[in-house]
Amino acid sequence: MSSNHRTESQALAQADLLSREHCLQLDAQDPLAACRERFTLPAGVIYLDGNSLGAMPAAVPARMRQAIEQEWAVGLIRSWNDADWYPAPQRVGARIAELIGASGSEVIVADSTSVNLFKLLVAALRMRPGRQTILGENGNFPTDAYVAAGVAELTGVQHRAVAPDEVLAALNEDVAVLTLTHVNYKSGQVYDMAAITRRAHEVGALVIWDLAHTAGAMPCELNACEADFAVGCGYKYLNGGPGAPSFAFVATRHQAALRQPITGWHGHATPFAFGQTYTPAPGIDRMLVGTAPQMGLFSLEAALSAFDDVDLQQLRAKSLSLTSLFIALVDQQLSGHGFGLATPRNPALRGSQVSLTHEQGYAIVQALIARGVIGDFRAPDILRFGFAALYLSHADVWDAVTTLKDVMDRRSWATPEFMARKAVT
Amino acid sequence: MSSNHRTESQALAQADLLSREHCLQLDAQDPLAACRERFTLPAGVIYLDGNSLGAMPAAVPARMRQAIEQEWAVGLIRSWNDADWYPAPQRVGARIAELIGASGSEVIVADSTSVNLFKLLVAALRMRPGRQTILGENGNFPTDAYVAAGVAELTGVQHRAVAPDEVLAALNEDVAVLTLTHVNYKSGQVYDMAAITRRAHEVGALVIWDLAHTAGAMPCELNACEADFAVGCGYKYLNGGPGAPSFAFVATRHQAALRQPITGWHGHATPFAFGQTYTPAPGIDRMLVGTAPQMGLFSLEAALSAFDDVDLQQLRAKSLSLTSLFIALVDQQLSGHGFGLATPRNPALRGSQVSLTHEQGYAIVQALIARGVIGDFRAPDILRFGFAALYLSHADVWDAVTTLKDVMDRRSWATPEFMARKAVT
Repeated sequence: MSSNHRTESQALAQADLLSREHCLQLDAQDPLAACRERFTLPAGVIYLDGNSLGAMPAAVPARMRQAIEQEWAVGLIRSWNDADWYPAPQRVGARIAELIGASGSEVIVADSTSVNLFKLLVAALRMRPGRQTILGENGNFPTDAYVAAGVAELTGVQHRAVAPDEVLAALNEDVAVLTLTHVNYKSGQVYDMAAITRRAHEVGALVIWDLAHTAGAMPCELNACEADFAVGCGYKYLNGGPGAPSFAFVATRHQAALRQPITGWHGHATPFAFGQTYTPAPGIDRMLVGTAPQMGLFSLEAALSAFDDVDLQQLRAKSLSLTSLFIALVDQQLSGHGFGLATPRNPALRGSQVSLTHEQGYAIVQALIARGVIGDFRAPDILRFGFAALYLSHADVWDAVTTLKDVMDRRSWATPEFMARKAVT
Repeated sequence: MSSNHRTESQALAQADLLSREHCLQLDAQDPLAACRERFTLPAGVIYLDGNSLGAMPAAVPARMRQAIEQEWAVGLIRSWNDADWYPAPQRVGARIAELIGASGSEVIVADSTSVNLFKLLVAALRMRPGRQTILGENGNFPTDAYVAAGVAELTGVQHRAVAPDEVLAALNEDVAVLTLTHVNYKSGQVYDMAAITRRAHEVGALVIWDLAHTAGAMPCELNACEADFAVGCGYKYLNGGPGAPSFAFVATRHQAALRQPITGWHGHATPFAFGQTYTPAPGIDRMLVGTAPQMGLFSLEAALSAFDDVDLQQLRAKSLSLTSLFIALVDQQLSGHGFGLATPRNPALRGSQVSLTHEQGYAIVQALIARGVIGDFRAPDILRFGFAALYLSHADVWDAVTTLKDVMDRRSWATPEFMARKAVT
């Protein structure tokens, strides 16, 4: 944590600038304020869980009705051609590419994040024969670690997970591929993509970046960083809906040599020739496996229209304004309630979420949800709050912290109902 | 082909029973006639491509609106618990189990058919260490062959594809796993699941059945056949919508030992404990990988209500009545036009489709589609017609063949528009 940033927040608080009126002034100057109307949000809710399931973009219902009641019901099989269902994985991928610093022919939508990571890990190992290590870090999102360990077992290499600050030192010439999540799901801390990619390349390793908490939350410059591969999630900050399909990025320079292991017909060069021998499609299409999950693609494509004409630097500035405000308000209003801060105070190291720690974190999150402030909990003690800059305001942040303070002052969380655990995705 | 069955069809034709009035009489006696109202079908269309993309069940639009506009938009992340999104893969799997002769805890919905086949092939190889062969047949649907070849390369075994009538003879003690599609996608011919499974088990091999053209089309008795594994498709005869997720079956006796290679968090015993070590869930849940594709699940679950209270023996009887009628009408009305029959005349060997051959097959299918009779084409010369017994009538079959006869008599197919090929999924 940076003591400079702590001092800055405290100064802000002491100067008594942190009032609801001040928040409303910030909202009045927000160039992205109008984007809130691109979403349908329920009354009485402040939604701080867009990092887990994004809110519903207002464009989705009409698109789904058209796709289901016209394209499917009336167009039937003809819609694969007539309604351009076939090129949807490429078309939606190209739209996502604009949000992550990639070119349109480098991104495609397919399968789930875990499946795409599996494909790319095996493909990366095949590009570095003889090397024996998949490197990761031990605070990564569990599925990334599980998939890497599964690939290691399948291919006879080792999966080595080190502490986050030991990653650079652990890169050596035995590492075939490094897999990291750009923004940590628990802490919201951001890795330096350029520096880590550069160091990995110096030792001849490839890197797969998981952009689950990056895409749509903050800019990212895959090509400027000379990234090799990336995967990401359609249902978090991209707002594609529950279980929306994932995206995969393969840098142009790697596409011709890429051999991913799940060789299904939609990744074939000529899927409708129905030959018995697999020939991978040229380019990014070889990442496809089976028939694309069109229902998820319809929704995801409509959802991405919420990013039309959005300046990603403005998105980043607003996101940091919201998260900095949240941290400052927690400092100001919640001291003495036992909270810790798990997210960096330095904005440059912060994604678009703030995580607090508290030994009663689970019950507190449940009490907040009952009051309409929706965040989530991650074991053992993390309260996660995601700040989707397209649909949240500074006044929302003020109101959320005010509610949290009230929940703590009244000990509203200390009821059996809130303390009994259920899973929250 | 059975000459007895040929004689029977010809006798039927010669007796002049094959009139539209006769078809209407058959429809009046059809116990499943009312099921047609469970589907929304466009006016002016006879849909014979439910084997590629099933028609839209009428229950789907309202369910999608509720799921999207209420559960997602209003319930937001809470719906994973409150709207029972979590157990959807198991719940929908259990409904499908009733259609394929499995128990509810043996089927789960996840990923695509190709991905599920990949998972089960690797899992099966791990159960038969030392054996070096994945056996298949060379007329199987291409993705099954591609995936098997990909698994063989990845794991260092061989993939051997033999002619369909050589499968039994090719089973030996080097075969770890046999993978077959129960109903052939091109010819509609049915394998004897019980006999092949028995013979495979005699040599110690496992079998993966692809039920893409079985589930929802005809009954199938996985457990009565002592089947090991199966996969299948959600968007054909189950009518789940474009790109609907796939299902996977694992016999109870194999579940505890099953180790599939794509070890994502939703297949973990305790996914929300967020530990760093993968422990597979007990039972069928270990087939899950990433977050379930809920949009496809919403649609598929609603679609399956079209099978409520449907007697599968009646479904089979009607399916065979439709396909036998189609064959008899083709015999009667289309002789001399150059068609061949690629589907067995013996009903016991026939799925729920009839495939004709014709050197101008592509153009003929296009001309038929332009007239509202929708079938599809499979290279090099197959015209495929699928007969979904829930929404087709004998009069539809009559009208379809009458249209085909007219297309042939007038040579309507012989235009550049119809002869220029586009992909049809």
